[in-house]
Amino acid sequence: MLRNDQLAEWDRDNFFHPSTHLAQFARGDLQNRVISGGEGLYIEDRDGNKTLDAFAGLYCVNIGYGRQEVADAIAAQAKELAYYHSYVGHGTEASITLAKMILDRAPTNMSKVYFGLSGSDANETNIKLVWYYNNVLDRPKKKKIISRWRGYHGSGLMTGSLTGLELFHNKFDLPLSQVVHTDAPYYFRRENVDQTEAEFVQQCVDSLDELIAREGADTIAAFIGEPVLGTGGIVPPPTGYWKAIQAVLKKHDILLIADEVVTGFGRLGSMFGSDHYDIEPDIITIAKGLTSAYAPLSGSIVSKKVWKILEEGTDKLGPIGHGWTYSAHPIGAAAGVANLKLIDEMNLVSNAREMGAYFNEGLKSALSDISIVGDVRGEGILSAIEFVKDRDDRTFFDPADKVGPQIATALLERSKVIGRAMPQGDILGFAPPLCMTKDEADIIIEAARDAIANVAEKIL
Amino acid sequence: MLRNDQLAEWDRDNFFHPSTHLAQFARGDLQNRVISGGEGLYIEDRDGNKTLDAFAGLYCVNIGYGRQEVADAIAAQAKELAYYHSYVGHGTEASITLAKMILDRAPTNMSKVYFGLSGSDANETNIKLVWYYNNVLDRPKKKKIISRWRGYHGSGLMTGSLTGLELFHNKFDLPLSQVVHTDAPYYFRRENVDQTEAEFVQQCVDSLDELIAREGADTIAAFIGEPVLGTGGIVPPPTGYWKAIQAVLKKHDILLIADEVVTGFGRLGSMFGSDHYDIEPDIITIAKGLTSAYAPLSGSIVSKKVWKILEEGTDKLGPIGHGWTYSAHPIGAAAGVANLKLIDEMNLVSNAREMGAYFNEGLKSALSDISIVGDVRGEGILSAIEFVKDRDDRTFFDPADKVGPQIATALLERSKVIGRAMPQGDILGFAPPLCMTKDEADIIIEAARDAIANVAEKIL
Ligand SMILES: Cc1ncc(COP(=O)(O)O)c(C=O)c1O
Ligand SMILES: Cc1ncc(COP(=O)(O)O)c(C=O)c1O
Repeated sequence: MLRNDQLAEWDRDNFFHPSTHLAQFARGDLQNRVISGGEGLYIEDRDGNKTLDAFAGLYCVNIGYGRQEVADAIAAQAKELAYYHSYVGHGTEASITLAKMILDRAPTNMSKVYFGLSGSDANETNIKLVWYYNNVLDRPKKKKIISRWRGYHGSGLMTGSLTGLELFHNKFDLPLSQVVHTDAPYYFRRENVDQTEAEFVQQCVDSLDELIAREGADTIAAFIGEPVLGTGGIVPPPTGYWKAIQAVLKKHDILLIADEVVTGFGRLGSMFGSDHYDIEPDIITIAKGLTSAYAPLSGSIVSKKVWKILEEGTDKLGPIGHGWTYSAHPIGAAAGVANLKLIDEMNLVSNAREMGAYFNEGLKSALSDISIVGDVRGEGILSAIEFVKDRDDRTFFDPADKVGPQIATALLERSKVIGRAMPQGDILGFAPPLCMTKDEADIIIEAARDAIANVAEKIL
Repeated sequence: MLRNDQLAEWDRDNFFHPSTHLAQFARGDLQNRVISGGEGLYIEDRDGNKTLDAFAGLYCVNIGYGRQEVADAIAAQAKELAYYHSYVGHGTEASITLAKMILDRAPTNMSKVYFGLSGSDANETNIKLVWYYNNVLDRPKKKKIISRWRGYHGSGLMTGSLTGLELFHNKFDLPLSQVVHTDAPYYFRRENVDQTEAEFVQQCVDSLDELIAREGADTIAAFIGEPVLGTGGIVPPPTGYWKAIQAVLKKHDILLIADEVVTGFGRLGSMFGSDHYDIEPDIITIAKGLTSAYAPLSGSIVSKKVWKILEEGTDKLGPIGHGWTYSAHPIGAAAGVANLKLIDEMNLVSNAREMGAYFNEGLKSALSDISIVGDVRGEGILSAIEFVKDRDDRTFFDPADKVGPQIATALLERSKVIGRAMPQGDILGFAPPLCMTKDEADIIIEAARDAIANVAEKIL
């Protein structure tokens, strides 16, 4: 067996980690951590440390770690047939079954699913489909995509452009010119603190309307949004937001892409966020919860309305010029089938609803007396705590003080609990596996309270 | 067990296949095919048909089908830890080991590997890195990418733009403006049939030089190319091409990205195509052969020169804003480690060299007397036959006659052998698994001869 110091050296010398300070890591200033196992909410590393992962990897391990049902399905598929492609009507029993299972669970206006690997590549597919759609409809100018500030839709050139976060644009020359951004539906951060929620929604709508007028509706193909803003801060939408936004889009014949990479398959306590908020999307992006990350798999679920035009397109133009070698990879498909079965058998969607409510209430009451806690919010098992310097006039900390990261570090060091310091703002995010129990919720709540109180004491 | 007709119905109703005529498939005019198993060069479908796959999936199943060593590694990893992310210095024993194994095999000037899922997303990463690199170096204008007509680099918006094939641009509004194309190094299709190979290479060089002069070297960041053109026709470069091209790029301080998605890990009879042709790339793209497709995994191998600037970048700017949730996925990493071990143990690189030579010679002599065979070419186990209407003045068939597709269909129907009708031109491609034996090579050669002769007879 390899020694840990040997692995650490190989790691430093050869491995380019994502979202990492490359120089610090290569110099050894930032230690590596080698994860070796996991069960339920817990992961274990090669040094024998056990940690409660209250962010489920990157909010993706929805069924929890170590589920042998899914591991067995992957093993069986690997033995039988690890790979064949899905071009020109090829498939496997698993990929066909999974397509059917997804459509059975998706909103009723959905028609077909295209399989990719990552949430990013699924959104890339979506933009290609939207452009193709408008070309088939002979609307060559209708191509721009509206996304929201603080949205997260991936990290490619187009998908990083859709993403509305500085960190992902900076020094990458993004956003590309085909993307325009509109307001984040982030009531807590409204400019005018006296505004009501209804007034704020109206402002989001007006601002979208103005953007569309400015750009010209005939130049705008689609609007993309997460039902609940995720990486941009974990922010459930203000009441009435989705209804009002959809009315604007309908008026201008703009397609709606619901990015359900985080919210799909139960996280909000509903199978899809679209059902949860009465969203009627033209395309839905799925990944993460589709396999609970046991194997890479994503998807673009296309509505009947869009599919009809795609069919027209191939009747006119021949086979569609789009595909990844690993589209509908058998291993991912097998993992997806086993995962969706397990979500049903374990009642994880209703558990997310019930435990989510319990957890969010618990956080609220446990943190109410800590002065730096400005907001506690959540929907299903997806929650955030936002920190403020002054609760009364809602002033924020200087980002350079890194209050959010300090709290995430205290949480890990003091209680061995992983929460995520969200990248823009001082926000601690939680998204544990959907199988979380009451006891586990209590542990996380207590750990959060301890870490926040500890850091509050130091900085105030 | 599900009935085949049930699966066919689910398939039609729910599954959006890549590179497929969507309307024909949904109507049932194009039949589905459900693959259920495979061994060595053979695959089997649910109707009990056994087929010799002389294209290794999509030239990716390099070790052949059904290798239990890799299946076992996947199964073991799935049981132990199916997923944890690799952000901020996290990893698994498999992902770290694989990073080391890749660098041990890569050209000596290489430094680190970033892991993705698909060849497309690896090239997407590459372009992001190249832009970041030039921003860190304070050359904000140096951003355009030169690619070659007939190159294939993926099917996303940027990577589909790099791809120089009509089918992938048509109705998708590609290429994006950041990409410019230069000549394909395709001697057989030279305009002037009297030109020598050396004259043709000089023309490629002059044309590149002119393109750079026209655009301005200070606007051009990188050149991307496959060591051997793949999907664009399977075309080994003319003698001296890579040496001459590299001299031009050096002169203008333009980075070279070698897309080794097809050529990496043995296909040409060398571990990398870069070694094979004395290419010194700044970045190498890998996928396919890295895991032999047993699990989705790709990579961007970054040279010392580029890595140094990336380190500088994060020292100035903090953690790099790039990552996929499934970067360095444990299942892919475990498959990669087992696959690279098996490539060594089975001596597949030298087998590709020897069997490739045998196969290419065999094709040449078996087909020399068929008048529609215009060119037989290959390098390692990567070969193509190009068809012409008239061999003497090298006139091509009308694409509408679909001679290439007809031959691929005859091959499958008459001999149960899969070859690939390449998408642009009448070209039959072969890229069987690298474990091909002499007997299997003979079967493919005989089947090719039979199919070509049969179609030739019909159309002449
Ligand atoms: C809403 C949303 N969309 C897309 C993505 C991109 O997914 P991936 O990292 O798999 O590319 C993410 C990842 O966090 C996400 O949260
Ligand atoms: C040379 C080359 N680069 C990139 C790709 C794209 O890989 P993927 O289909 O995995 O996205 C391919 C796929 O055939 C390829 O041949």
